[in-house]
Amino acid sequence: MHFPHHNLLGIQELTSDDITIILDTAASFKEVSAREVKKVPTLRGHTVVNLFYEPSTRTRTSFEIAAKRLSADVLNIAISTSSVVKGESLKDTIKTIEAMQPSIIVIRHAEAGVPQMVSRLTGCSVINAGDGSHEHPTQGLLDMFTIREKKGRLKGLKIAIIGDILHSRVARSNIWGLIKMGANVTLCGPPTLMPIGIERLGIETTYSITEAVSDADIIMLLRLQLERQKNSMFPSVREYTEFFGLQENHLRLAKPDVLVMHPGPINRDIEINGAIADGPYSLILEQVTNGIAVRMAVLYLVSGK
Amino acid sequence: MHFPHHNLLGIQELTSDDITIILDTAASFKEVSAREVKKVPTLRGHTVVNLFYEPSTRTRTSFEIAAKRLSADVLNIAISTSSVVKGESLKDTIKTIEAMQPSIIVIRHAEAGVPQMVSRLTGCSVINAGDGSHEHPTQGLLDMFTIREKKGRLKGLKIAIIGDILHSRVARSNIWGLIKMGANVTLCGPPTLMPIGIERLGIETTYSITEAVSDADIIMLLRLQLERQKNSMFPSVREYTEFFGLQENHLRLAKPDVLVMHPGPINRDIEINGAIADGPYSLILEQVTNGIAVRMAVLYLVSGK
Amino acid sequence: MHFPHHNLLGIQELTSDDITIILDTAASFKEVSAREVKKVPTLRGHTVVNLFYEPSTRTRTSFEIAAKRLSADVLNIAISTSSVVKGESLKDTIKTIEAMQPSIIVIRHAEAGVPQMVSRLTGCSVINAGDGSHEHPTQGLLDMFTIREKKGRLKGLKIAIIGDILHSRVARSNIWGLIKMGANVTLCGPPTLMPIGIERLGIETTYSITEAVSDADIIMLLRLQLERQKNSMFPSVREYTEFFGLQENHLRLAKPDVLVMHPGPINRDIEINGAIADGPYSLILEQVTNGIAVRMAVLYLVSGK
Repeated sequence: MHFPHHNLLGIQELTSDDITIILDTAASFKEVSAREVKKVPTLRGHTVVNLFYEPSTRTRTSFEIAAKRLSADVLNIAISTSSVVKGESLKDTIKTIEAMQPSIIVIRHAEAGVPQMVSRLTGCSVINAGDGSHEHPTQGLLDMFTIREKKGRLKGLKIAIIGDILHSRVARSNIWGLIKMGANVTLCGPPTLMPIGIERLGIETTYSITEAVSDADIIMLLRLQLERQKNSMFPSVREYTEFFGLQENHLRLAKPDVLVMHPGPINRDIEINGAIADGPYSLILEQVTNGIAVRMAVLYLVSGK
Repeated sequence: MHFPHHNLLGIQELTSDDITIILDTAASFKEVSAREVKKVPTLRGHTVVNLFYEPSTRTRTSFEIAAKRLSADVLNIAISTSSVVKGESLKDTIKTIEAMQPSIIVIRHAEAGVPQMVSRLTGCSVINAGDGSHEHPTQGLLDMFTIREKKGRLKGLKIAIIGDILHSRVARSNIWGLIKMGANVTLCGPPTLMPIGIERLGIETTYSITEAVSDADIIMLLRLQLERQKNSMFPSVREYTEFFGLQENHLRLAKPDVLVMHPGPINRDIEINGAIADGPYSLILEQVTNGIAVRMAVLYLVSGK
Repeated sequence: MHFPHHNLLGIQELTSDDITIILDTAASFKEVSAREVKKVPTLRGHTVVNLFYEPSTRTRTSFEIAAKRLSADVLNIAISTSSVVKGESLKDTIKTIEAMQPSIIVIRHAEAGVPQMVSRLTGCSVINAGDGSHEHPTQGLLDMFTIREKKGRLKGLKIAIIGDILHSRVARSNIWGLIKMGANVTLCGPPTLMPIGIERLGIETTYSITEAVSDADIIMLLRLQLERQKNSMFPSVREYTEFFGLQENHLRLAKPDVLVMHPGPINRDIEINGAIADGPYSLILEQVTNGIAVRMAVLYLVSGK
């Protein structure tokens, strides 16, 4: 199969075949990080630019390690140390970076749609590492990779996504992907944090966590993005935890082999009980490990090599 | 021809032969960045330290990519994250870095003359990446490289440099270099931003942009360094743009094959009309591309390999 | 001889045989940095994470260069740019980093005991790069390496350590190491900056610098850590210098071949006369050079290769 995309802007634009190619490629790259020498020469002599307009240790380091394990040269540009202090426009920044002839620009930005705009400005491959509340496609892909690895399939699974759906780019990327792959998605969160009309995509919604987790194969929590909620969208954190925080008793309502996911970093004992996060049902750290493999796959595939 | 310098502190110290060696070497390195695998083993096992006392995405990333494409190990030290918070003197910082046995120290500093001082302190090669209002030699060299590549020569060309000449290290490096290479330089800017007595170097000066651009082969704009002007040296930005901003009608006064340059980042519609910056006369992005090749050449030549 | 440790948490935990193995290994790695191509393939395909919760140019760059000269991939995570702004716990940060499958985590933290805690959380090798006022083992090792290289031995030498003993992790690591290696240690500092009961370790203490330096083979100054002293522990810096700053006349009391050390960065003319720091008795810059070799040795040995 051939991966027909020069960029990875969102999962919305991918077909189920595209997703399958990425997940299969990631499976082969996962083996590289299990070796003593975690390095292949795939992108030797290529430059990967990590252009981060929002701070992120987790995603930036994952892309940086992925690129280095492919033998690429990595350049980190963070907003706070960049010439944005001199007031250069995004367009001029991108054209300047492109003129240095990198192969791939990985971009994170607080505004939705910026990676799309960037991809129209440059001939470099562009990977969206999170844009506002829009998409975080490599997170969605690594989540699907992890589920498929554990359950052997995505089709037909009941996947409950719980939390602040409205502001979550992680939820959005997972929803697009999981629907395309034939999973049954149930969204759960406070009414104020649920996108209006989301049911039209053919997914279930509920305001009851017990309903959401019942018979679930996968429970996927979202981080409460307190820093991104400009207005008070719910009464209090304590109340949020009471109604939507995952507790031990919820697990008994789900399938016996239910697994729990979270994109991290977790707010312990807010959206997820700490013991569950550290316990045998949790896939949280495997998600991190798989993130490297999925990003190696995406860097490789968009490079067109 | 042999490059006789262990450092690159300024263009003022170079002969026209030195400049020609650098430009010829850059031409051969430019080909490396056009390859699929943009890497040569020239500086493998050498350490290049980017010591930046002023923030700069553009110059720092250009040096970093150049060094990595030569297979050097690169170490970035930025002032804000450095032990300067502990109050170490510049001299002690340099001696400490030298003791770690890098081959080359690339230094940017807000004070003129610091790279010269550093070169007297250390046996490492020192490259000036911009010192106060003094020199920015690799910028001057990449500008000359770009002109020579486009026009086939430097000698006899009319080159108009427009803007805040007084505070511009870019202007200063270009003036030294262009004179040595036989170009005819015309400087243009507000009287308060023109160095006194500069005509003695054998260059033209004018306060009229129409006079400056008339019959020009190259129009080189300078960035309005608002952050470096402590006192108000001209009435207002609007007035500056009215009298010294490059507009479409100016191009008609120049040679038919005139080309426009700017070291970036540009202040759109202040010192340069945005349409010109993006248009067919503009060399702005080629300057960035050539910056990598010129810096590869300089890193290679000062290393004495 | 076999190095039996998976981590380097402190010198307190090492035997004299362990220390000898590290110093011997460092001696062989020192030769690498003297070559034209300063690189060996020892840790190719391994990832080393520099996790710094306190800023440090000196130690971070030393570890970064050491790791790169071993061909490792290096990832720098500094607190200020990290997701700690999102409030992730140290434990979750470590588990996340571990999930990315690095071989070694180098950690600096303002709190004593953090590296020990981290080593219990992760299967990665952990190297303490300084924890509060507790230990800075690679500094102690590079100091011992430097003394042994210059004097041919450690056993039986009189080593005076002068300054703020109480707050110094450098002093603590050196004291543990020097005692194990059979040196005679004399501590000297203001009474308020001397740990109570330290004599029980079998070392001399004095409040008189002339007594401390008399017949000394090595005078080791400590940095006055003004930033770590929350309360005023002595009357004034001027008074400190008068009573405990090293001056030329002190050298005449020591052995004729006395050598002077300081972990840097120095406070010139506070704890050490500037002329001594720059003079023939000073080992300060050799300490920096040896730091690379010792860190290469430690990275190699804890990796178990």
